[in-house]
Formats: sequence, structure tokens, C-alpha cells
Amino acid sequence: MTDWFANGKAVEHVPISDRGFQYGDGLFETIAIRNKEPRLWQFHMERLAAGCESLGISMPAETELATGLAHALQHSNASKDYCTAKIIVSAGTGLRGYGRTDAESPSILFGAFPSSPPPAETYRDGIKVVLCRTRLAVNSATAGLKTLNRLEQVLAQSEFSATGEFEGLTMDADGNIICGTMSNVFFVTDNEISTPPLDRCGVAGVMRRHIITTLLEQDLGVEIRSIQATELNNVDEVFLSNSQFGVVPVSGCMDTQWRVGAVTRRTMTIMADNGVAECQQ
Amino acid sequence: MTDWFANGKAVEHVPISDRGFQYGDGLFETIAIRNKEPRLWQFHMERLAAGCESLGISMPAETELATGLAHALQHSNASKDYCTAKIIVSAGTGLRGYGRTDAESPSILFGAFPSSPPPAETYRDGIKVVLCRTRLAVNSATAGLKTLNRLEQVLAQSEFSATGEFEGLTMDADGNIICGTMSNVFFVTDNEISTPPLDRCGVAGVMRRHIITTLLEQDLGVEIRSIQATELNNVDEVFLSNSQFGVVPVSGCMDTQWRVGAVTRRTMTIMADNGVAECQQ
Repeated sequence: MTDWFANGKAVEHVPISDRGFQYGDGLFETIAIRNKEPRLWQFHMERLAAGCESLGISMPAETELATGLAHALQHSNASKDYCTAKIIVSAGTGLRGYGRTDAESPSILFGAFPSSPPPAETYRDGIKVVLCRTRLAVNSATAGLKTLNRLEQVLAQSEFSATGEFEGLTMDADGNIICGTMSNVFFVTDNEISTPPLDRCGVAGVMRRHIITTLLEQDLGVEIRSIQATELNNVDEVFLSNSQFGVVPVSGCMDTQWRVGAVTRRTMTIMADNGVAECQQ
Repeated sequence: MTDWFANGKAVEHVPISDRGFQYGDGLFETIAIRNKEPRLWQFHMERLAAGCESLGISMPAETELATGLAHALQHSNASKDYCTAKIIVSAGTGLRGYGRTDAESPSILFGAFPSSPPPAETYRDGIKVVLCRTRLAVNSATAGLKTLNRLEQVLAQSEFSATGEFEGLTMDADGNIICGTMSNVFFVTDNEISTPPLDRCGVAGVMRRHIITTLLEQDLGVEIRSIQATELNNVDEVFLSNSQFGVVPVSGCMDTQWRVGAVTRRTMTIMADNGVAECQQ
């Protein structure tokens, strides 16, 4: 169960007229709470602000969001030491019709729910992914953003929810691998790390940014490069990133197998040293 | 104000956990009520069923939808003779995470709100449109469907909500004109009618289908053909279709002017004779 809060009170409902429900007109952030603190808070705030800017929604004051989140954690049944929080900022309740007026003020909701890290084997042996049939539409006006329009991820994830794979990789309409349904993907070829560009579709995860930034500080570059699904055979190692689980190796995708190799291991160690304790081995 | 109903009761809220709010995981139909009857009911039901099929949502029984809509109309403050109804079918409340389980049952909501036809000048003189900067992402998994993921339309319509044009035309990422933000578009060139394909993006309106079907019965074909924004100068006439207003001529788009010509007039007359009284001149 998720506990939800708004305006300092527990809530269970939103108005039907909320534009988040009517049109998916809003954004959200899913934040890892570790040792009572929101991890990568600044990155979450910056992505949310970028989303608000793109969508024309007033970005709430950061202090308002921090206070609201702290209140939610305090009153939620989830563990304050380790849980998952969610902030939803929708365009608010409005008149009928797609266009907004100036009258709406954003709806801000805070959720907290229990979570636990994947088991040690996940980090040690890696996980299996599938290649999803659902493609991501290209040149999306909201590429990179975490909006409430998430049908592509819903459809892609529904493909393997019954078979139980950890994650599915999604391609764009042109056959480029873009990201997982709930994660970003990194490839290692000849010891070089790359990750797909997200300027045409996909979600730019905060952990992806954290990895790129952190590796750069270690003089380890990450190339932003497209990769076709047909090239998966030529890749040496693959790993996924996500705000909750951090970094997880991928051991295979359908018929293709990858080793959990040295570059992935080194990345996991570096990230564990930089606030992502989950991937400590 | 819109009056909303669910399960035979007036409602104002949905659960925060409704997948419609969390992910835009659902569909809707906006239905014209004329003389106490839902117009183009069968087309609405068929599009909704196609959407449910694509999204993997159980299509509610048609009788359940008809009964729910009749109940909403009966208890709403909107005029039963002439108003707008909305049916929302979301994937229902579920566990956290994009993937659905088998446990969800759809949420079904019925709304009714007052509406009135555009003034006679709209049908006589035509209206102005703008060309929106917001592009539609191409090769969408939900092309043609009326899902609750409507951010592109929100962004496009927000471009001209302040300047007050009647409608905006949206292009796909490749510069093809696809549709209006809340309407479909038809072009007349050398007396031939065409309308853009909607297999890569856009919404396939029920009135568009009604026009194509009706004109075909009169031995007047409508060609499904892409048109680039750069070709707008070469077009003789333009008209829009929408479930509520029927057929409306377009007199211009920014610097380009079009006459309200004979083919548009004839189409309006034919449609007025086929249940779309609004466009009777």
C-alpha cells in the first residue's frame, strides 16, 4: 500500500477534473529514501523543474517539496530508513478542454511506500531482460521527461509481467535501443561505456545522470551513442540504472548472453562509493 | 461544471492509485448528445473497443456503457436535448509499477456538461487556425486511439489558448499535417477531398469516419494522403471535423487564406442530411 499526502494531510483521491487524470498533464519523480534522506534530491528537482518548464506548469518551490516529502515520510507506514517516495505534480484541476487557462495551480502529491533492494544474486549474477515489441514513438515533445503520459511503458512492461523477467528493453520506432521500461541501459564494448541518447524519446533517469557525472569525475567517459537492436550481439557487457536499485548487471537478452564483466563491476564499485550502497559487492 | 457519475452514483474523485491518473492508462470518448441520444454511438463504441484491445483493458459491455451514460444524462444538470458527454475507461486501480496484473478491473466514469454549437458565422464564414509548433511523435504505439495520454494536444492547444484561434493544426515530427488538437482536417484540391493518414500518430475521430463513410455512399471518395505544411498554399479548401461541431470550414492558417468553397459546402449539406444538423446552412 502506498500512503499519499497533500497539503499536509493524508489523501486517497484526486478530483476527476484533475488534468493529471484527464490528460496525463503532469510529471512525477520516484525517489529513493536512504537513511531517512532522499537520494539524488538535486537531480530529481532539476528534472522536475525542466519538466515543468517544458509543460508550462509552475514549478513548486523546492522547500515546499522538501517539506511535503518530509511530512509524508514522517506520517507514512513505510520505513524512513529505506523506502520509495513519489512526488506527483499535475497541472491541477481545470476547465474542460486540452488548453490550460492561467487559473490552474498545480496539484502536488507525496507518496511513500515500502521497498527493499533486489537480492544479492541480482547484483552478483545479473538479470535477464527481454526486448519489448512495443516501440517508443520518436521525436516526442516530452522526450527525456518523466511525465504522467506513460502508456508506452505500461504496454512494454505488460509484455513480460507474466513471464517475470526483471526488465524489458524498449526500442524506438527506428530500431534503436533507448532504455528499459523503468531503467536506463548502458553498453560496454571494448571497455568503452556508452548509453543511448534520449533527445527523441525515453526518460532521462537521475541515476543515469549520476553515473555519467561520477564516471566523468574519475576520467571515465560515457559516450552517448545510439545502438541498434541488431548490434546487441557485439556488446561485451550491459548494465541497467535506476534511482531505486542503482546499477544492476544484465546477463542476457533472449538468445544473447553477456558476461558480468570488469567494467560493470568497476562501475558498481564506483557508484557504491558514491552514495549507491546497493551495488556494493 | 461537469457532473460525473460512476456505478450509478454522482462522484467527484478517483483514487490516486487509479492507473488513469498515475500513467494515463486508459481511454475516453467525447460524445455529442443530440435530441436525448448519443450521436455516432456505434463508432464511439468501436473506437473504444479498439483502444481497449490495444491497451489490454477489458472492454466494458456496451449495454453497461449505454445504461451508465443514460443514467448520467438523467441526473446531470446538462440539457438532455443538447450537451456533451464523456466516457472515461481507465485500467483501474492497481499495484504500483507500470505493468498491470490481472487483478485490475476498469474504472468507468460518465460525465455530462452543457455545450452549445458554434455561432452561425463559424459555419458560414469559416474559422482561422494556427500551425502549432508542438509536433506529434511518430510511430506511436497508440496512434489513432483516444487514450488518456494527451500531453501533445495539451501543449499544442496551449500555444493558441491566449490568442483565441478556433483550432491549431499539428504536424508530425516529419512536417506532415496530421490533425487539429481536437479535430480532424480535410483538404480539397482540384475538387478532390483528402485527409491525412493516422497510422503513425493523431486521433481518428468518429466524425472523420462518419464523413468518409457517408461521402463514399454518395460516390464521393476521400483520399487518405499525407500533406506537408509547405503544401498548404496549394490547397483550395480546408475543413475540420469533430464529434461536437460536425464540419466547420477553415478560412485561413496564418498567412494562407482559403475560400469557403463548393466542395466544403456540399460536404456540410450532405452531413447535415446525415445526422449532423449543426452544419446545415
